[in-house]
Amino acid sequence: MHDGDSSLEPKRVRGGRTQRREARSGGPGGVKRPYIIRNIPTYDILSEESLEKIEATAERLLAEIGIELRDDAVAMELYRKAGAKVRDISEGIWRVTFEPGMVREILKTAPAEFTQHARNPANNVQIGGKNVVLAPSYGSPFVMDLDKGRRYGSIQDFRNFIKLGQTSPWLHHSGGTVCEPTDIPVNKRHLDMVYSHMRYSDRAFLGSITAPERAEDSIEMCRVLFGAEFVDQNCVIMGNFNTTSPMVLDGVTASGIRAYAAANQGSIHLPFLLGGAVAPLTMAGMVAQGLAESMSSCALAQLVRPGAPVVLAAFFSSMSLKSGSPTFGTPEPALASLVMGQLARRLKLPLRCAGNFSTSKLPDGQAMQQSMMSMMSAIQGGANYILHSAGFLDGLLSMSYEKMVMDMDMCGALHAYLDGIEVNEDTLAFEALNELGPGQHLFSTQHTLRHYETAYWDSALDDNQPWETWDEQGGIDYAARANTRWKKLLAEYQAPAIDQGTDEALLDFIARRKAAVQDMWY
Amino acid sequence: MHDGDSSLEPKRVRGGRTQRREARSGGPGGVKRPYIIRNIPTYDILSEESLEKIEATAERLLAEIGIELRDDAVAMELYRKAGAKVRDISEGIWRVTFEPGMVREILKTAPAEFTQHARNPANNVQIGGKNVVLAPSYGSPFVMDLDKGRRYGSIQDFRNFIKLGQTSPWLHHSGGTVCEPTDIPVNKRHLDMVYSHMRYSDRAFLGSITAPERAEDSIEMCRVLFGAEFVDQNCVIMGNFNTTSPMVLDGVTASGIRAYAAANQGSIHLPFLLGGAVAPLTMAGMVAQGLAESMSSCALAQLVRPGAPVVLAAFFSSMSLKSGSPTFGTPEPALASLVMGQLARRLKLPLRCAGNFSTSKLPDGQAMQQSMMSMMSAIQGGANYILHSAGFLDGLLSMSYEKMVMDMDMCGALHAYLDGIEVNEDTLAFEALNELGPGQHLFSTQHTLRHYETAYWDSALDDNQPWETWDEQGGIDYAARANTRWKKLLAEYQAPAIDQGTDEALLDFIARRKAAVQDMWY
Repeated sequence: MHDGDSSLEPKRVRGGRTQRREARSGGPGGVKRPYIIRNIPTYDILSEESLEKIEATAERLLAEIGIELRDDAVAMELYRKAGAKVRDISEGIWRVTFEPGMVREILKTAPAEFTQHARNPANNVQIGGKNVVLAPSYGSPFVMDLDKGRRYGSIQDFRNFIKLGQTSPWLHHSGGTVCEPTDIPVNKRHLDMVYSHMRYSDRAFLGSITAPERAEDSIEMCRVLFGAEFVDQNCVIMGNFNTTSPMVLDGVTASGIRAYAAANQGSIHLPFLLGGAVAPLTMAGMVAQGLAESMSSCALAQLVRPGAPVVLAAFFSSMSLKSGSPTFGTPEPALASLVMGQLARRLKLPLRCAGNFSTSKLPDGQAMQQSMMSMMSAIQGGANYILHSAGFLDGLLSMSYEKMVMDMDMCGALHAYLDGIEVNEDTLAFEALNELGPGQHLFSTQHTLRHYETAYWDSALDDNQPWETWDEQGGIDYAARANTRWKKLLAEYQAPAIDQGTDEALLDFIARRKAAVQDMWY
Repeated sequence: MHDGDSSLEPKRVRGGRTQRREARSGGPGGVKRPYIIRNIPTYDILSEESLEKIEATAERLLAEIGIELRDDAVAMELYRKAGAKVRDISEGIWRVTFEPGMVREILKTAPAEFTQHARNPANNVQIGGKNVVLAPSYGSPFVMDLDKGRRYGSIQDFRNFIKLGQTSPWLHHSGGTVCEPTDIPVNKRHLDMVYSHMRYSDRAFLGSITAPERAEDSIEMCRVLFGAEFVDQNCVIMGNFNTTSPMVLDGVTASGIRAYAAANQGSIHLPFLLGGAVAPLTMAGMVAQGLAESMSSCALAQLVRPGAPVVLAAFFSSMSLKSGSPTFGTPEPALASLVMGQLARRLKLPLRCAGNFSTSKLPDGQAMQQSMMSMMSAIQGGANYILHSAGFLDGLLSMSYEKMVMDMDMCGALHAYLDGIEVNEDTLAFEALNELGPGQHLFSTQHTLRHYETAYWDSALDDNQPWETWDEQGGIDYAARANTRWKKLLAEYQAPAIDQGTDEALLDFIARRKAAVQDMWY
């Protein structure tokens, strides 16, 4: 029942303990894994029959209700030419319906797996299949730390989060809007954001999607960095596009999708589903809707340029029965995310789903309990690109410095988890027990000496000392340790080298683009 | 590949949303679930081939190294008569080896599933199969709370933890040594502990195992509470027995196992495996050893009384590579626990495994992150009886009041998780989206109105309010809310009724037993 069961024997190519050992012995400057290749099967919780019912409901939603497309006549024409029925609702608003099976057919041109290139080729990531790529959280207007509390994010915060991510061997991708740099005009901040990713990280990243010209600028900057020809042939940037749930695709989103696809760049198609608000409360229906919206959005990219990389996606959340507020890191969306993994594999598309979600306003026990429940669903469910892997607090309204380093550490634990259990003569360790026999400690056995440096993942943030030692050292809690750690990591951060000519060309592009338009603050 | 996949269609008998709805609408006085019947498959991470290798290694350990049995000639004779080879090592110490397959053959008389009776029959628990029974943590010498910090546990703390457990609809079993009541003499505290479970809870519980006469006293008190004939025919108490890893069964443990089995009571057979100390560091070997030790210990119970209820068990932990200290809630033991679930199902025995483990000294983010990783492995791996489901901190050295209520709340979330996702016409919710169509919020749809009270598990402890509201109310963190909550729960606690004659008989038994011997403090 496990698609992608890779547990039979450990893979030695890229993932697995061999690489882990290298990453450790190499230390911060050593060999790191650019992404994880999962060595455990996915957790498949629904039967074939139930999955088929969800898929049939998604098809029925697309056929009988359809997508409301707004303000993008080009997208409308693409859908119409592909065979969709398009009905005028009012000026610039159309209802697009698809015969059952039609969207699935269009999606056959989408790659099951693709490479997103980084400016440092050692950091290229493979998206899809058994690969897992972890990226920091995305889109919070506020930032938080224990010293200064909650405030609007600035470009300095933005750079700081990129730098923190870059220091972590357990993240693989620089993310996108790691926080909103609200001190930069709305119509110009995409330039500073994309530049920050290019300059302060040497990993792959996401570009702007908030206006068609910002999407184009993001891609144009990639042409400066990678060369225009390389960009046309390879995915070097992705855009993260939200449908307007329920069942709406707005013009800004549709034209952004078209821009990324036309340039052969990647696009993530994410319904952000709050149960009871913009989706049914019940998980089966929420997943069906997520599938329908994401499939029809992915299809637009394929109609623009067949073969353009797309990522199926869904963000599931529940709500508080007391207040009606959205809740994150709760059990029902975790289950839904596992199911989304099953559906993505049946569709043979890469998946973005779940992350380190929490509703907590502090990096406390609630935060980490909710995060772990949500993140495990992404990891176990087979999500390939996990945005929101670090920093998420306050129901996505705040990016937390402490939570960022807590989650980065947790991502390290998840590397070990995805490596699974090796079963062979050596790890079965009969000799270890036979060496000294019953009742004898194994500290000094050959097996222990051979394995003790690599057997267990080692946290940089957990306190594993005896209580007395911990108490003597001040009895510091997890949040305070995280506070110390992010400051240390930022202080030690070193920017990856960049070609000076390229850097100047990027800065010149930005200066020209900024000079060309008035500041806009909304 | 999933044994016990029950996801095909939701079960309506006992578990599932029907009961959940009842539990909610009924509130504290309403219908509660006495235990969970899982409605999601188990997470099976190893292949058949790898499992067979682990099983073969366990058999080889038993055949070639064997178990060192100490100070129990009766147990030695039982093993010998069953066909084991017994070799004298020294006075009262024997090496017992078993031909491959022999222990597995002996275990065929053990029930795959059994009922442990509670004094309130509504709280009887079913152990084995698809059933999940949650119990508080066990065995900490210290207790902690945010007001008074860490100190030795007392009988008052012991009673408090039983009372807190009893208030929770998300625990099903009262546990055993919820903390050590260190203010009671060592040779008499079992009497007060067993009485406290009987008096302050009306759920099933664990008895003493620290000396043969204490095991006998525990069972004798059950005869007072339930009647001797009932006890002989039914499991009303269980003992939690630790092997002395690696590969030793000491006389106190062996005679305790014999006492429980002879009385037809349950026994849990738990190797407590610290990798690199009393087990190999590598997980495949640790699991093989756990299986060998637990199987041979379970077998003793079957030799005493075939059919006596036994629970296969294992406690896996890792160690800090920096300090050599044991670590809990880490990824490798979580994987091992999933594998132990697969092995238990192949052996057709109920399983106790993992729990809310953490090395943290405070109820902080580390605590809940580690707890969730560990607890999920028990839940997903199919453990049937999950001791340490609430209160565990400080590497099992401390029972925390705040962690107790945090974990109780998490156990609620896990009820919802184990209920899985129902897929039917109603939950697929086509009509919900069709009612108002694209772009329209679903707040007021018939589907939302019908489901909003029961769609999501509702935490008693998480803060899901908007940041502004939370901030206005003082910006209270999770630990502080837990501190308020345990005090409130204790203040509101009401003892379940008990027959006055029975209560007096129990107190009389205790008084006589206490008077008969001198206090011992070690």
